[in-house]
Amino acid sequence: MPFIRNAEETMSMEIIIIGDELISGKTRDLNGWYASGCLLSRGLLVSEIRTVGDNYPSISSALRAAVKKSQVVIVTGGLGPTEDDRTTEAVSRVFRRPLVLDQDLLAHIMESIARLGLSWSPSLEKLAWLPKGARILDPNREMCGFSISRGDRHLYFLPGVPEQMRELMNRAVIPDLLQKHKPRLIPRHRLLKVYGMSESQIADAFEGLSDKLNTVIFGFYPSFPENHITITVRGKEDDQIDRELQKAEQEIRHLLGPYVFASDEQTMEAVVGEMLKERRMTLSVAESCTGGLIGHRITSIPGSSVYFDRGATVYSNRSKVEMLGVKQEILTAYGAVSDEAVREMAEGIKGTAHTDIGLAVTGIAGPEGGTDDKPVGTVYIGLSADEQTFSACYRFSGERDKVKLHSSEMALDWVRRYLYGYPFIPGI
Amino acid sequence: MPFIRNAEETMSMEIIIIGDELISGKTRDLNGWYASGCLLSRGLLVSEIRTVGDNYPSISSALRAAVKKSQVVIVTGGLGPTEDDRTTEAVSRVFRRPLVLDQDLLAHIMESIARLGLSWSPSLEKLAWLPKGARILDPNREMCGFSISRGDRHLYFLPGVPEQMRELMNRAVIPDLLQKHKPRLIPRHRLLKVYGMSESQIADAFEGLSDKLNTVIFGFYPSFPENHITITVRGKEDDQIDRELQKAEQEIRHLLGPYVFASDEQTMEAVVGEMLKERRMTLSVAESCTGGLIGHRITSIPGSSVYFDRGATVYSNRSKVEMLGVKQEILTAYGAVSDEAVREMAEGIKGTAHTDIGLAVTGIAGPEGGTDDKPVGTVYIGLSADEQTFSACYRFSGERDKVKLHSSEMALDWVRRYLYGYPFIPGI
Repeated sequence: MPFIRNAEETMSMEIIIIGDELISGKTRDLNGWYASGCLLSRGLLVSEIRTVGDNYPSISSALRAAVKKSQVVIVTGGLGPTEDDRTTEAVSRVFRRPLVLDQDLLAHIMESIARLGLSWSPSLEKLAWLPKGARILDPNREMCGFSISRGDRHLYFLPGVPEQMRELMNRAVIPDLLQKHKPRLIPRHRLLKVYGMSESQIADAFEGLSDKLNTVIFGFYPSFPENHITITVRGKEDDQIDRELQKAEQEIRHLLGPYVFASDEQTMEAVVGEMLKERRMTLSVAESCTGGLIGHRITSIPGSSVYFDRGATVYSNRSKVEMLGVKQEILTAYGAVSDEAVREMAEGIKGTAHTDIGLAVTGIAGPEGGTDDKPVGTVYIGLSADEQTFSACYRFSGERDKVKLHSSEMALDWVRRYLYGYPFIPGI
Repeated sequence: MPFIRNAEETMSMEIIIIGDELISGKTRDLNGWYASGCLLSRGLLVSEIRTVGDNYPSISSALRAAVKKSQVVIVTGGLGPTEDDRTTEAVSRVFRRPLVLDQDLLAHIMESIARLGLSWSPSLEKLAWLPKGARILDPNREMCGFSISRGDRHLYFLPGVPEQMRELMNRAVIPDLLQKHKPRLIPRHRLLKVYGMSESQIADAFEGLSDKLNTVIFGFYPSFPENHITITVRGKEDDQIDRELQKAEQEIRHLLGPYVFASDEQTMEAVVGEMLKERRMTLSVAESCTGGLIGHRITSIPGSSVYFDRGATVYSNRSKVEMLGVKQEILTAYGAVSDEAVREMAEGIKGTAHTDIGLAVTGIAGPEGGTDDKPVGTVYIGLSADEQTFSACYRFSGERDKVKLHSSEMALDWVRRYLYGYPFIPGI
C-alpha cells in the first residue's frame, strides 16, 4: 500500500493503546486508528502503535521504550476510576513523579457527579490524583486527560472511551503539537468512490494517467461493493494543494467516467437524494430480496421525506399482487424472480405511489432457494420512469448479506445513472 | 475491563502487524484483533500487539525487540509481490539468513497463476524467495506463509489479507503452537446479550450474584443499543467447564430475567424469527421513521420468508392512508407521529397482510422535524395481535442513525416479549 510512502518524517511519534480487551480479541481498536489518521491529516506521521494489557509491567515497559525512541507519545486508556485502570500509577512509577491530589479537579468532579444526580463513590477520587508536574488537557471535563514533558519528550495521556479521546485529541493535543512543530508539508486527501469497476479494471484505466501527476500519491482500497481511491497531495500552501488535488480528481473522473459516484464522506444514497432534490423528483421502491434495505439506505439521509414517498417490501407472492398489482399469471408463468415480475413491480409501485420513479428489486439472496436456472445471487432490477421501464438480470456472488448489499447498491446506482443520463444498466 | 485479569501466563507471545495503512488512519486493524482472540480461545495469551509501517527500520526494530521479549512472535503483512512488501527481506537481514529461491514453491505459484487464467508477472517470483531455513506453513497455497525458529524463539509470518491470514492461523499456526505447549487451563467464553437495561442497572443486579461464581470472570461491553456480558470460565476438562459456564449463565439469566435476549452469535432478529417459526406465526411491519430497517433486519435471517409476509414503508402521509388505511382525520387531528396513528398503522398492516402480528413504528428521527411537544427522538411503537393492540411512546437519544437503530431494536423486542409472554412494553 503506497499510501504514505513519501510522507515527510517530522517529529518522531508513537501511540500506546492500553486495554486487556484489545489484546484478547474482544474489541477492535478505534483509538489508534483514529489518532493516527487525525495526526496524519495535519502532516504528523506516527511510526508505531503499540497495544498492551492493563498491567504494570506491560505499561511500564511500553512507556520506557517509547520515550527512548519518540519525541511525542500519545497514550490512551487506563485512566478510569477502577482498580484495573493503572496508567496514572504506572506513569508515576516510571518517571518517578509522586501522585498529587489536584483539589480543583476533585471539586470539579464532585460538582459534575452531583449535577448528573449520581451518588458519590470514593473510588472517583482516584481521577483527581495526577503525577507531579502533570498538565491537565481540558480542565472542563471529568476525564480531563493530562500531559507531562521531560526535556524534548512529550507524553499525552487520554481516556480510552473513543468519544472522550477524540474530543481531547482535537481540542488539546493537536493544537499543542502544532505549536511545538509546524509541519513543512501539509498532506491533504480526497477519497473517490467507484462502483461497477473491479480493482484490476481500475488499475488498467490508471495506466492512462498523465505523468504530470507523479507527485500525487494514489491508494486503492476495496470497500464492498465499492472500490475507493485515495488521492494524497502534499504542499506548503492551501491554494496550491487544492489546485493539485482538483487536477488529480478531474483526471481520475475523466479516466473512470460515470463509475466515480461520490467523493469523501458522500454515500451512494446521499448522491441519489441530492439529485432527486435538485430535480424536484420523487421516488418509491418495491423490494423483495433486499427486504427494506434500499428504503433504509434512502431514509438514512436527513430530509429524504422530500423525495421518498414510500416502499413496499413484498416478500410473499400475495403481497406482490396485492400491494403492486403484479399479475398472478406472471408469477405463475415466470416466477417471482423474473424480468417480467420486476417490470410489473417497478411499474406497480410507481403507479400506486404516483412518484416520478419506481424502483424494484427481486432475487434470490440465499442460501436456500437457488435453482440450476436461477442460482443464488440471481437478482433482477427494474426502473420505471417517464413512460419507460428498464430491467436487467445480475448474478451477485457471496453470502446473503453481500447479495442484499450489492443489490441495493446496484439499484441505487440505476437511479443515479438514470438521472445523470449516463450509459444505463452497467455490468458487474 | 477485567476480561483477562486472571488469565494464565503461558508462553510469552506477541503480534506484529505491518502496514502503512494501519498507522495512517486509513484502515482499522482486523488481524491483531482476530489473532489475539483466536489464541486466547485456546488458552494462549498475547502480551502485546505492535503495529508498524512498511519500512525496513520499523520492521527490523520490531522484530529485534520481539524476539528479545517473547517466545512466540506472530507477524502479519508485507509478504506480497510489490516493492512495498518488505517483511521477508527484513527477516533475512535481521536474522542473517540469505534469501533462497524455493523451486517447488515457484512451480506451484506459476501453476496457480496459469490455472486462474492470469498472465505471469516477473514480480511474482518474489513470493518464492524465502529466508534460509524457513518452513512453509501451507504448501498448497500461493500466500503460503512461513515460520523460522531460533532456539526457543518461534516466529510465524502470515499474509496481511485477513481471509488468508485466518486460514493459516487456524490450519497451521495454532496446531503448531499447541504441539509446543499445551495450556494447562482452557478458557471458554459465553456472550449474553441484554437489551433494555443500562450498564449501571446491570451492575446493580450483579450485586446479587452468588459467591460460588467467584472463579468466573465477567466483562461488560456496551454495543449500542445493547449491552453485552461475557462469561469466561477456565478449567482442564470440557465437561467441567461446560457445567460452570452453564451455571453462570443460568444465574445471570435469573438475575436479569427477560432483559437477556440472546447468547453468543444470536441476534435480536434471529431470536424473533426462531420464535415465529416455532409457533408457526406470521409477521408484517409498517415503518415510518425506520424507513425499512426493521424489514431489512428481519430478512437478514435465512428462511425468513416463512414468517415474514410484507412491509409497508410509509414515509408520506398519503402512503399511510393508502397502504394501511390510516384515517386522514387521525393524521390531521393528532399528527403522523402519535399514539392514535401508530395503532392504526399496526392494525392496518395486520389486516391487509392477514398476518398474526402487525408491528408499526412512527417517529421523528431528526435532525429536523422536532417540536417542543415531540422533540427529535420521539418514537411510537404499536403491536397488533390476537384482537389486541398495544402502543407506547419512547424518547430515544442520539443522531438519526441511532434513533433508527434503537427504534428497530425496541420494535423487534416487543415481538419477542409478546411471544414469550414477558412483562410487556419496557422502558428504556
